[in-house]
Amino acid sequence: MKEIKNIAIIGAGLVGSLLSIYLARRGYNVSVFERRLDMRKHLIEGGRSINLALSNRGIRALEEVGLAEVLKQNAIPMHGRMVHDEQGKTNFQPYGKKGQFINSVSRGGLNMVLMTEAEKAGVDFTFEHRCLSVNFDKTELILQHHEAIKHKTFDLIIGADGAFSAVRWAMQLTDRFEFKQTYIEHAYKELRIPAGDTGEFLIEPNALHIWPRESFMLIALPNPNKTFTCTLFLPFEGTNSFANLKSTEAIQHFFEKHFADAVPMMPTLQEDFRDNPTSSLVTIYCYPWHRNKTLLIGDAAHGIVPFFGQGMNAGFEDCRVLNELLDNHGDNWKTVLPEFERSRKPDADAIAQLALDNFVEMRDLVADEDFLLRKKIEARLHELYPDKWIPLYTMVTFRDDLRYSHAYATGQKQKAIMDEVMQIPGIKTKWETFNLEDIVNRLG
Amino acid sequence: MKEIKNIAIIGAGLVGSLLSIYLARRGYNVSVFERRLDMRKHLIEGGRSINLALSNRGIRALEEVGLAEVLKQNAIPMHGRMVHDEQGKTNFQPYGKKGQFINSVSRGGLNMVLMTEAEKAGVDFTFEHRCLSVNFDKTELILQHHEAIKHKTFDLIIGADGAFSAVRWAMQLTDRFEFKQTYIEHAYKELRIPAGDTGEFLIEPNALHIWPRESFMLIALPNPNKTFTCTLFLPFEGTNSFANLKSTEAIQHFFEKHFADAVPMMPTLQEDFRDNPTSSLVTIYCYPWHRNKTLLIGDAAHGIVPFFGQGMNAGFEDCRVLNELLDNHGDNWKTVLPEFERSRKPDADAIAQLALDNFVEMRDLVADEDFLLRKKIEARLHELYPDKWIPLYTMVTFRDDLRYSHAYATGQKQKAIMDEVMQIPGIKTKWETFNLEDIVNRLG
Repeated sequence: MKEIKNIAIIGAGLVGSLLSIYLARRGYNVSVFERRLDMRKHLIEGGRSINLALSNRGIRALEEVGLAEVLKQNAIPMHGRMVHDEQGKTNFQPYGKKGQFINSVSRGGLNMVLMTEAEKAGVDFTFEHRCLSVNFDKTELILQHHEAIKHKTFDLIIGADGAFSAVRWAMQLTDRFEFKQTYIEHAYKELRIPAGDTGEFLIEPNALHIWPRESFMLIALPNPNKTFTCTLFLPFEGTNSFANLKSTEAIQHFFEKHFADAVPMMPTLQEDFRDNPTSSLVTIYCYPWHRNKTLLIGDAAHGIVPFFGQGMNAGFEDCRVLNELLDNHGDNWKTVLPEFERSRKPDADAIAQLALDNFVEMRDLVADEDFLLRKKIEARLHELYPDKWIPLYTMVTFRDDLRYSHAYATGQKQKAIMDEVMQIPGIKTKWETFNLEDIVNRLG
Repeated sequence: MKEIKNIAIIGAGLVGSLLSIYLARRGYNVSVFERRLDMRKHLIEGGRSINLALSNRGIRALEEVGLAEVLKQNAIPMHGRMVHDEQGKTNFQPYGKKGQFINSVSRGGLNMVLMTEAEKAGVDFTFEHRCLSVNFDKTELILQHHEAIKHKTFDLIIGADGAFSAVRWAMQLTDRFEFKQTYIEHAYKELRIPAGDTGEFLIEPNALHIWPRESFMLIALPNPNKTFTCTLFLPFEGTNSFANLKSTEAIQHFFEKHFADAVPMMPTLQEDFRDNPTSSLVTIYCYPWHRNKTLLIGDAAHGIVPFFGQGMNAGFEDCRVLNELLDNHGDNWKTVLPEFERSRKPDADAIAQLALDNFVEMRDLVADEDFLLRKKIEARLHELYPDKWIPLYTMVTFRDDLRYSHAYATGQKQKAIMDEVMQIPGIKTKWETFNLEDIVNRLG
């Protein structure tokens, strides 16, 4: 492989922007091509979520380029789930130990900081350039800018262009490219809870609010301007579904029936419901992640559903892992490209499955007594044996030193053990007297 | 839906050509667009198999447009498998009862007959027109002819453009389109056994020859010109693999070791091996099969591996089933399109799985004693209870009145029963004295 100097990144989103910083700092000439306008100068139509949960894996990737501190300043800590039942009663369930939390951050704000930092590092951004295709033999991009088609050749191309990646689209035509795109039955729609009359948060700001209703749910994440962004996750079709919410009356009735305590805080419910899109939720699996000198990264390689709050974190971790491989192999991309996809694919598959599984937990199990008891027992196991029994949520969210694939495999073992423990008659009252070390040791 | 008059079919292959006949006979104006040259006037570069196994489902679909007889005249009946072991000994295993056989037909020959018949029925063929994209809202085709781009609007578009369908490619960008493409680890390469010096078949013509070698195999199908087309199915990578056959010596050694009895009949082995492509084998799953007034059919909707000899037969059956639905619903496409995909998808999934399973049977099990005993017992069950116990191969190949999904489900039940039967101590000698009715009745 001839020396790599000029690298093109497709997509100026979160992952593309962060990756451009990593690569520019390594001394590469990095050009980023984005199909939209510059979001720092134009109000961009979204189609993507307004805020995101930034947790340890993402923070670590930002720390390595010195950006964690500035971003934490605009983040709102969420220490646990605030579960709202149908009577409007709330129940706080901490995510981990005291001092452990995830962060509600603004997608747009974070993206703009990353782009500006990238430019400071020497990255060149070109907007309104859509990737039409890639010639993998020549490492050539075919780009569309308004009515013009441009051909540009690079030493390396990286597709960071999201779940509907144009780079992957082109790769899909190459021989023996494994690919699957699959949707869940639920759609999502974003809604709002504004700030109060005196500019205060209307509900607890340091929590992720969930209204779990078994087959569907509403969630709310806090924003720095004291508002909350709510997201309704509901099936497209069926009894409780978007298909059945076609009139203002139906919407009002549905919300009053299921989210009675939220409705008074949502004065723009009808307008938001009408104006905001009903969006689908896809999972993307593909392999390999590179062809010749073109690589996929982030959602382009492994788009996942949002229910573990790990999409961005996984993409940022991709950047950190790739950077580490470049360190270990002296920037020998010929070694690094296959090594990256080989080592990272099991982690991508693990977080994809964990994200799907966590939807069931959020919309249904968090309101279940047995589930809460199980969590309680696991929290005690972790307290007593902090290195031996680490709850799944903690492994995924707070332990950036553990791989997703390890978290998934360990979580499966823990589940099997806890399934047995929960079968013990009288478990509810007796569990505190159990030999907990025996349970931990079953992990082997 | 406004009245459908003008229908475009993408792809002048086997399924597109047969479908055009069905639709032209129903009174539609049918235009077929093919990206290649007219194979009746030009020698077309293949990339596809030379001969195919036509069986009852395909024959029935041809019969309904009156084409079965003419095609049977050029077909060579294959009554069973001729298994060649490593010592060169052969063992004939009939496919079904006496008089049941599959047919080796020439892909090109069959395709040309279908195109010519279609033209007689009024179908308009346009060659060297590649489908670039489809506008599903307008039912508009975007076609490329040499350097020109053409836009053409129809009342209905049908993508019969194969496993790498451009119509499906465009559909994949529409929301909530489920899609998976996956490859097996094996590649295939076509080779030849010529006719003998006096123009005779060198081996038994009325059989499908198999050299099963567990992880790989060679097969041979007869052609009307007394030659055989051989196909080597071998992994891309690994000990026995195409990756390890990179020199004439390695090829010669490999063939002499594993296919000693075939080598003397393959004088052009080295040239064929060098000149013919090493091709991959894909399975395609997608859903839905239509968007608005654009439909996928045949391999475009459900590409499968060739090991049950059902790819063409399934595509032809698609045409027959679609035609039947048009009969039943008075050509109301608004009803027929969703009904077609809904009813046909389980059959497509079933034959996809059966085709994958049959590879193991062909390359490994046909050389296994237990497997042969199992087949013998099943043949007896079928003889005694012809309506109650129908072997899987028979259901798939000879019973066009049974759906693939029924064959698959019944095959699974039969397998579970036979797994138990085969566990009976001394089964090999005792089976003829068993109460066979009891076995049959377990099917329920």
